[in-house]
Amino acid sequence: MSEAHCQQQRIMLQNDLLLRTLRGEQTERTPVWMMRQAGRYLPDYMKLKEKYSFFERCQTPELAAEITIQPVEQVGVDAAILFSDILVVPQAMGLEVQMVEGKGPLLPDPIKNGTDLQRIQVPDVHEKLRYVFDALQLTKKELNGRVPLIGFAGAPWTILCYMVQGKGSKTFDEAKIFCYTQPDTAHRLLQMITDTTIAYLKAQAKAGADVIQLFDSWGGLLGPDDFENFSLQYMRQIVQALKEEVLTIIFAKGAWHSLQPMAATGAHGLGIDWCITPAMARQLAGDKVTLQGNYDPAKLLSPVPVIRKEVLQMLREFGGHRHIANLGHGILPNVPVDHARAFVDTVKEFSMVGSH
Amino acid sequence: MSEAHCQQQRIMLQNDLLLRTLRGEQTERTPVWMMRQAGRYLPDYMKLKEKYSFFERCQTPELAAEITIQPVEQVGVDAAILFSDILVVPQAMGLEVQMVEGKGPLLPDPIKNGTDLQRIQVPDVHEKLRYVFDALQLTKKELNGRVPLIGFAGAPWTILCYMVQGKGSKTFDEAKIFCYTQPDTAHRLLQMITDTTIAYLKAQAKAGADVIQLFDSWGGLLGPDDFENFSLQYMRQIVQALKEEVLTIIFAKGAWHSLQPMAATGAHGLGIDWCITPAMARQLAGDKVTLQGNYDPAKLLSPVPVIRKEVLQMLREFGGHRHIANLGHGILPNVPVDHARAFVDTVKEFSMVGSH
Repeated sequence: MSEAHCQQQRIMLQNDLLLRTLRGEQTERTPVWMMRQAGRYLPDYMKLKEKYSFFERCQTPELAAEITIQPVEQVGVDAAILFSDILVVPQAMGLEVQMVEGKGPLLPDPIKNGTDLQRIQVPDVHEKLRYVFDALQLTKKELNGRVPLIGFAGAPWTILCYMVQGKGSKTFDEAKIFCYTQPDTAHRLLQMITDTTIAYLKAQAKAGADVIQLFDSWGGLLGPDDFENFSLQYMRQIVQALKEEVLTIIFAKGAWHSLQPMAATGAHGLGIDWCITPAMARQLAGDKVTLQGNYDPAKLLSPVPVIRKEVLQMLREFGGHRHIANLGHGILPNVPVDHARAFVDTVKEFSMVGSH
Repeated sequence: MSEAHCQQQRIMLQNDLLLRTLRGEQTERTPVWMMRQAGRYLPDYMKLKEKYSFFERCQTPELAAEITIQPVEQVGVDAAILFSDILVVPQAMGLEVQMVEGKGPLLPDPIKNGTDLQRIQVPDVHEKLRYVFDALQLTKKELNGRVPLIGFAGAPWTILCYMVQGKGSKTFDEAKIFCYTQPDTAHRLLQMITDTTIAYLKAQAKAGADVIQLFDSWGGLLGPDDFENFSLQYMRQIVQALKEEVLTIIFAKGAWHSLQPMAATGAHGLGIDWCITPAMARQLAGDKVTLQGNYDPAKLLSPVPVIRKEVLQMLREFGGHRHIANLGHGILPNVPVDHARAFVDTVKEFSMVGSH
């Protein structure tokens, strides 16, 4: 990223804690945000959800911007993450994607072999995903420099999981078997997703995203060698392609075994889940990368005093440097708002105490 | 375990590779078996499945014994594992358990709070689970010393997951939230499951099980502290209670972070999944325990030459000592029989070469 660009962001943003922490600077306190989708636990979001379908919410920039900013205004997080979905990419590539309320995504015509690749293409993202860039621009304008804006995409492996399996799964066996039995086709598909994702994320940065997070939600289903082969080599391409333009975070849930090579990609931050101690994660990742996480999302249902105690413990374990406080996976929709606020407030208070 | 008991087994068993490997002895080759359920990928099993319901197959000793022995005769594994299910325990405790074909288990009246505990009890296992012991005795007789017989139970945490969530889940959020918001009730329930399981497994050993495996299929959903609190302390009780009577293996899928304390329970073996390298697992677990695993079950769909190559690599990485070759989770039902055989044969051939 050019210095001029950094400088411009610093001038424009009133709160750039997230960006400085990702760059490895010592900050006055730990930044905090909560993983997607945006404010799915907020009553104001629920109201919009009743009125508009999932894709209406994603594809209408005014709605996406409103939902994106809700947690900033109502819970006080230090960054906004665009309201969208990782499956807009396979949709833009030509696969039908349905969002079945309460059931998750459904891709009725999944990819099963090389012939199926003819049904999809690397699209012109500016045409097919323009609504995302419009939403980012509008959000950026409405945020008016209050906090940074995070854009995102699914990692190619995770996108392949849905494109092949056709729906959510505990183990994505069909996707794995596709890779193990038709590796050449799998790599062709992964490269198509990667090329699309690079263009998509470059355009997100141009439209105003200050940070890009890659979600490899299903990275943890692969052993270390397969993770390198079917996931990390494609994420590495993406990080490399973006490194001059925007700050990047890789979140490969469960792929603790590859923290070292993930750090070596040059990503500025690595997300970790709650199944690894901060000390172990730091040992594996080294000290040249920012760690993000790692509170168990189900624990936000605990009583508020328990949340406060556990968040303080987490902050102490991360040591207050190169750490972004976050959950170890997405927030659950049934989290009471005051519990989400307790999480955010505890981080803000701790860091203030810590700075004295 | 008493020496007399060991001696008796050694005399009776023609193939005791599994037992000697669990005791830490150097053996002439690595033992191999494949995780449950027994021979679910075998055409002969499929025929029985069409004719009898899941619980008919479990509860009819003749059927359970036949299914248990099929992989020994048809694929040549070095151990038989009883055909049964971990959910016979909550069933015996008084909860209704349905097995919905193609959909997995359903517990229509799950545990939600302390009052619900009144609906269940620590049962007389000899009465409620007698069919399991009958099946073990019959299997033992029909095996006639060919290979050891493995009994099993679910770990208390994994059983709680189903008792509270009421069905399978990717994340078992309801079960976790139950533990985090009603910890006293959760611990009461876990202790009831533990007490039942200890009696159940002691009776399995008495009925002929040479080895007991505890399946903590959902252990990996908990962070290190919660794993100790809600899972490992109960598995420790079970291992302690069984140690004089039978060899034990703990398989807590995904709980790599706790290999060290799991080894310290005194369990003879620890199962590991494919998301950790053998070297890392050995480093974490120490050298006083046998490791079992860890081939990715989805890879049994790969072409046979690929399976052979990868299994050889796995065997080399484990180093041929204190290792039981196995999958990193249960075998998939769509594995071709010759692929399962390739797995087993490769282990047997490698070890013969290695012994020269």
